[in-house]
Amino acid sequence: MSQFQPRNPDFETRLRASFSRQRAMQSIGISLVELSPGRVVLEMPFNPDFTQQHGYLHAGTVTTGLDSACGYAAFSLMAADAEVLSVEFKTNLLAPAKAPHFRFVAEVVKAGRTISVAEARGYGVDGAQEKLIASMTCTLMAVPA
Amino acid sequence: MSQFQPRNPDFETRLRASFSRQRAMQSIGISLVELSPGRVVLEMPFNPDFTQQHGYLHAGTVTTGLDSACGYAAFSLMAADAEVLSVEFKTNLLAPAKAPHFRFVAEVVKAGRTISVAEARGYGVDGAQEKLIASMTCTLMAVPA
Amino acid sequence: MSQFQPRNPDFETRLRASFSRQRAMQSIGISLVELSPGRVVLEMPFNPDFTQQHGYLHAGTVTTGLDSACGYAAFSLMAADAEVLSVEFKTNLLAPAKAPHFRFVAEVVKAGRTISVAEARGYGVDGAQEKLIASMTCTLMAVPA
Amino acid sequence: MSQFQPRNPDFETRLRASFSRQRAMQSIGISLVELSPGRVVLEMPFNPDFTQQHGYLHAGTVTTGLDSACGYAAFSLMAADAEVLSVEFKTNLLAPAKAPHFRFVAEVVKAGRTISVAEARGYGVDGAQEKLIASMTCTLMAVPA
Repeated sequence: MSQFQPRNPDFETRLRASFSRQRAMQSIGISLVELSPGRVVLEMPFNPDFTQQHGYLHAGTVTTGLDSACGYAAFSLMAADAEVLSVEFKTNLLAPAKAPHFRFVAEVVKAGRTISVAEARGYGVDGAQEKLIASMTCTLMAVPA
Repeated sequence: MSQFQPRNPDFETRLRASFSRQRAMQSIGISLVELSPGRVVLEMPFNPDFTQQHGYLHAGTVTTGLDSACGYAAFSLMAADAEVLSVEFKTNLLAPAKAPHFRFVAEVVKAGRTISVAEARGYGVDGAQEKLIASMTCTLMAVPA
Repeated sequence: MSQFQPRNPDFETRLRASFSRQRAMQSIGISLVELSPGRVVLEMPFNPDFTQQHGYLHAGTVTTGLDSACGYAAFSLMAADAEVLSVEFKTNLLAPAKAPHFRFVAEVVKAGRTISVAEARGYGVDGAQEKLIASMTCTLMAVPA
Repeated sequence: MSQFQPRNPDFETRLRASFSRQRAMQSIGISLVELSPGRVVLEMPFNPDFTQQHGYLHAGTVTTGLDSACGYAAFSLMAADAEVLSVEFKTNLLAPAKAPHFRFVAEVVKAGRTISVAEARGYGVDGAQEKLIASMTCTLMAVPA
């Protein structure tokens, strides 16, 4: 259960509309599977089109999932007239991104009026097994829409 | 001119072969345009398939270009029997990724036996105009092939 | 309870000896208050000698506490003949470092043979109240002693 | 020569006054040696009171110098009624901080109305020899004074 109260009671409609406009999500195959105030879970099946030289998911693709998860986790707590912008993020690659399925879980750590901070973890999922493959800390900014 | 000497005189062949196996590069449309010891330049045309909700290039896609540039810049200085692995990276998003063309320029800062560090800048290119849109610092590791 | 097993059963003696040689800890007034495999807690009273222009603890001092906590959390899991080296770290400053007491809690996320990753949180403590003021992700390397 | 114009023509007086209130600078022995719009150089002699377990300067102390350099580089370009706040920073430790003297050089990369980004390098200085020991990317925010 999140510690945060949404500033916009209708955050879910607005967030899902924004997510559906992120064409990168569709091209890579990332979908939104869980959403609550300050917390977002995205998932994708392994996609050979976005691999690096050893056939694992490219670190940039993992980062794309983690960044979108962080961005929407922060966005879920922003005012109804705000847009969200990633200021910066850092990804640590903890294990090869080699699994049939991936899961990106983001939670807000700080929900300021201007600056928010979210943290995310990326998991490789194989049946009931989940392995931590990456982590992100992301700084985001609310800007007038 | 780079300050670094390649450990592997045949680094170029090996690097180009590895780059051509990164399917993410082909799917996004990123190509290798310059290569010297410790320095790599990648380029891509704007690609609407990899945009975020406002129609700009997704920060994760920008990061994919910057990370590959850093990875290959470090790889160009590694021994002939080493593979390169991204340990972590940090991206700062400095301006909207909105341009007809993008350029990712990476240079090695430290080329250690185990740990290397590279820095990259991402530019939006419109004709003769280049605008800085992002920066990355990336830590990489040489691992036995 | 930590998920990690120490490689060196005598890690505690070795860690305390190393901590006592960090003269920065004594000069700033940071002490080691909890230690288990993969987890370290440091504390310090507010120290006006290490403040920034508004009288709060300097972000660099907060980072000093977080980095030492991460370093020793990683060190607690390393082999008996290894030394620990910080490769890089990132600090997010989440609230002003303004409190009578500070607490730095670090836990290992990955304990690799060469590369470890730890995460830390810094808290301002005022009696029974604890406020999150900073977070760190730190990459560390084991090197032969 | 910097590409940036100061918003506050009297930035130098204001910056020097703020720097002199950073008690951490005096306690560690860090002084301001160069200042121009968007660029700051700090220096310190080696100080055994701020060392880690091997007798080198503590990474947190190196970070204290780099962060102050970045903060004042950004502050030099801010409006007369703004205060500067570090949002986050990342330090890469590139070589042991082992030298008789240290130099921290910061330059602004982006000077936004709200968000600025600065980069810094730390050098160990021994006579005429300068060795790169650390780098930082720092995100800063202008807040009303």
